[in-house]
Amino acid sequence: MCDTCGCNVTPSTDEHSVEVLKGLLDANDHIAAHNREHFARHNVLVVNLMSSPGAGKTSLLEATIDAIGKNLNIAVVEGDLETENDAERIRQKGVPALQISTGSACHLDAHMVHEALHDLALDDVDVLFIENVGNLVCPASFDLGQHANVALLSTPEGDDKPAKYPVMFRSADVVLITKSDLLTVLDDFNPVSAERHLRQVANPAPVYQVSAKTGDGMAEWFDWIRRETRSLE
Amino acid sequence: MCDTCGCNVTPSTDEHSVEVLKGLLDANDHIAAHNREHFARHNVLVVNLMSSPGAGKTSLLEATIDAIGKNLNIAVVEGDLETENDAERIRQKGVPALQISTGSACHLDAHMVHEALHDLALDDVDVLFIENVGNLVCPASFDLGQHANVALLSTPEGDDKPAKYPVMFRSADVVLITKSDLLTVLDDFNPVSAERHLRQVANPAPVYQVSAKTGDGMAEWFDWIRRETRSLE
Repeated sequence: MCDTCGCNVTPSTDEHSVEVLKGLLDANDHIAAHNREHFARHNVLVVNLMSSPGAGKTSLLEATIDAIGKNLNIAVVEGDLETENDAERIRQKGVPALQISTGSACHLDAHMVHEALHDLALDDVDVLFIENVGNLVCPASFDLGQHANVALLSTPEGDDKPAKYPVMFRSADVVLITKSDLLTVLDDFNPVSAERHLRQVANPAPVYQVSAKTGDGMAEWFDWIRRETRSLE
Repeated sequence: MCDTCGCNVTPSTDEHSVEVLKGLLDANDHIAAHNREHFARHNVLVVNLMSSPGAGKTSLLEATIDAIGKNLNIAVVEGDLETENDAERIRQKGVPALQISTGSACHLDAHMVHEALHDLALDDVDVLFIENVGNLVCPASFDLGQHANVALLSTPEGDDKPAKYPVMFRSADVVLITKSDLLTVLDDFNPVSAERHLRQVANPAPVYQVSAKTGDGMAEWFDWIRRETRSLE
């Protein structure tokens, strides 16, 4: 009962719903652990890319395949509500890509990834990138069995996003400031402020400033992938 | 049981969970209808702004208040996971703004808005803007009792977003292509393609190309607000 207007409204999240949602997350963690065993058995580095829509995840992958795809076998799982567009862009680079259409689901979950990985010849893969649904909130809560979370923050979004989306940026093992080529025309993105906001959510993760378009700063990102891949050997 | 590896994995969304989630949406619709009665009683136009993080919702509101705030009484409800930053920006314009901190919730719901609206003197308000959580997926599924949904698509995100986030763009009564001042430096945004993608998800909504920074195209947006406000009289 609403105190002010006397109307009969109740919170939309009751105890029962919270319990069901907790159950979903527990079930997800169970399958994520199973995925992790698959990846370990096949010695595959698995990187979960997360960001807002249009922050440049697919462009980053295209440039990454161009740069290191000759020395490392890459595969990609693409998560989108609809369309095969991203998977097709990756396949044009000669790399296997599986599209997961989530329908109305706002994130990938461990079960979706589990279904997809049986269609990949993991023995032939060194690095599996999972491009999550473009969303700075929900994907961070669902473990997929990955080794590392990489959060992209594109410069036109503004440097305050780590403060406003703390769950996502706290979960990141690496933060990539993307579209750095736009910094000269933007007046509301200071990379120093972006990093300060990240530290304020208590995340010590490395921050690399990159442009997939010009190639600026991409070497550090490629070095990180190579180091992580070697660490599995 | 997984056919390929024989492991015991089950889908993360079972029938029971679907039922609970449907129940949440039904409860939300009930409260949204109640909010709508509140708004009608006070003759307030209510506009729900939705977009990706950093697409320029708050900047749009600042420019809107500057342009039409003398002739129309504006109030704002701000939805964010954390921080009061956006509400403070609006208050600096002399306009009442209530911040809803959603915590880990990826969208506003009708109950949150209902709680907030009792703290607003609706009799003194002509237009209430609700700035939803930055997210191109979840907010579209939760009716708040608004008169209109306005979806912002910022140019750096790319013109394919209506195809990739059809639920959001299908729900829009107006689409604003924001940050049009960046069009000269971007090579992957064609406004004609953006509109074509919108039509392909069967949405005939008007599309206005705007820059809150330069003011270009904003007159059409202001005219739309004035027309909608008059239509309530």
